Amino acid sequence: MYPLKELDAIVMRAIGSLKFVKEPAGLYEPLEYMMSIGGKRLRPRLCLTAFNLFSDDISSQIIQPALALEIFHNFTLLHDDIMDRADTRRGQLTVCRKWNDNVAILSGDVMCILAYKYLQACPAARTSAVLETFTEMGARVCEGQQYDMEFETQPTVTSREYIEMIGLKTAALLACSAKMGALIAGAPDAQTEALYDFGWQIGLAFQICDDYLDTFGNASVFGKKIGGDILCGKKTWLLVEAYKRASGADRVRLETVMALPSDRAAEKISAMQQLYIDLGVKEAAVSAIEDFHARALEKLEGKGFSSAQIARLREFSETLVHRED
Amino acid sequence: MYPLKELDAIVMRAIGSLKFVKEPAGLYEPLEYMMSIGGKRLRPRLCLTAFNLFSDDISSQIIQPALALEIFHNFTLLHDDIMDRADTRRGQLTVCRKWNDNVAILSGDVMCILAYKYLQACPAARTSAVLETFTEMGARVCEGQQYDMEFETQPTVTSREYIEMIGLKTAALLACSAKMGALIAGAPDAQTEALYDFGWQIGLAFQICDDYLDTFGNASVFGKKIGGDILCGKKTWLLVEAYKRASGADRVRLETVMALPSDRAAEKISAMQQLYIDLGVKEAAVSAIEDFHARALEKLEGKGFSSAQIARLREFSETLVHRED
Repeated sequence: MYPLKELDAIVMRAIGSLKFVKEPAGLYEPLEYMMSIGGKRLRPRLCLTAFNLFSDDISSQIIQPALALEIFHNFTLLHDDIMDRADTRRGQLTVCRKWNDNVAILSGDVMCILAYKYLQACPAARTSAVLETFTEMGARVCEGQQYDMEFETQPTVTSREYIEMIGLKTAALLACSAKMGALIAGAPDAQTEALYDFGWQIGLAFQICDDYLDTFGNASVFGKKIGGDILCGKKTWLLVEAYKRASGADRVRLETVMALPSDRAAEKISAMQQLYIDLGVKEAAVSAIEDFHARALEKLEGKGFSSAQIARLREFSETLVHRED
Repeated sequence: MYPLKELDAIVMRAIGSLKFVKEPAGLYEPLEYMMSIGGKRLRPRLCLTAFNLFSDDISSQIIQPALALEIFHNFTLLHDDIMDRADTRRGQLTVCRKWNDNVAILSGDVMCILAYKYLQACPAARTSAVLETFTEMGARVCEGQQYDMEFETQPTVTSREYIEMIGLKTAALLACSAKMGALIAGAPDAQTEALYDFGWQIGLAFQICDDYLDTFGNASVFGKKIGGDILCGKKTWLLVEAYKRASGADRVRLETVMALPSDRAAEKISAMQQLYIDLGVKEAAVSAIEDFHARALEKLEGKGFSSAQIARLREFSETLVHRED
């Protein structure tokens, strides 16, 4: 096994040397832009980390499929930004804002297709399994996005519905990333499936962490303004949990804060933060992240992983759940 | 070989028994709707026809990949309708109009992904080749759509640019359909490639025929109003050819007709039809269709096809180029 930092460097180099731009430039430039504006590159890093548990032979057979995951992820972000009418992403203009919706639709489409092109580099004996895993994941991510959009107009969302939605929208891709690494390395079936389950659980932890940081993160580290979810009334883990806990006077207080107009942004954000603290939601979020993290590690038990392999996966997952950005 | 009518019936039955609708219904119902509103099912029919040149063993290994082509085609139509702000498609409301743009974006995305799911049914030994052919086609179709959109704001389009655009947007998918049938049947490489080239050329003939029928078709057979392309100033084969031919007084006449306001629709359509006749564009379109059809058949020469195989492909292609709808 290589040090995690070395695997990360391989991913960063591979993404840095991706070259998409060809004719027509109007189609490929937005794609290149989207891939260049950064991100944690979490999915290819997890894929490579899972692969490296079983093999040190890091060639294009694993690097390109790992990139397929990042390209697919960026395709979904590109289309999500149209649907959410988002102006910025990672501090830069979104494609739909820098160009227009039509450009974002079509450049997104070609990204989805190019993701499949990068998958093709996997060993021929694994093509069917990789294709199946990837395609099933793709449908799930769309289903998750659909539920997320439906939640916007749904009066209440239960914890169960919320976890199901982020499972589809976020965890399925992390699960697929871990599984694909194992598949391409030719890992035993039981370990391959265990890595899928591990990826799913850390995906849930990751998303709740995202929700937490949007409200309680350190603005200078987090990279975007704190309180965005509060201002747009997004049904995050925190809000779903608050509705579950608040009754009587607390419920009135919750509804009152929710009803504050957006021109009283600072007041609305701090009132909601305080309410989350008072209701124990802030603390519960930290526990939920730890719980899903623990469940992720439990998925690895009894599957014949060595202690070095387990330690490596723990090292990876800890960077996700103890992150500040 | 089965009679063509029998192959068509197999395609129709397979499409009729497709079942997509599952949860969330908001994602899958628009997809089911899009697949149900008809169309010629040309791509799966061509795929099955090419397959049947080499094999009578028609199972899900060919039927499902053939359906993947139809699903992919409908995905592109779904997104094109958003980009073109189209209200109707095949006499029915478009998905973006019946639901909304967000629904059309996301349902289209899941269709693209499901196309890959249906591809997976092909024989394992062919998966890599089929995946590569399909994915290359997918990128080309997006490139063609990009050029088509760019043509809208481009002052002039040359014949060469026009043929390149329809090659990417329309012919690439027909070429892929024919090639996939041959690939899955295990046909010899030279014949597989010849079928790709055949599909490409009939794709060009098919699109020019489409342009022709939009202006000179029989409204009661064509199924949509005649003159739609004229009214929206679409850069069709006819218009590109007219600009090439018209100089002096003809050019002034062309510009005058083009400048007629859309509330003088009937006048504008009949003036443009007459101009196309006077410039010889109508006649030239019929010749161009025949020329591309002849080129398609030439691509099959010297590749070891039997006369029965050639006759079958000619039977198929004649229905495309001598159609009235």
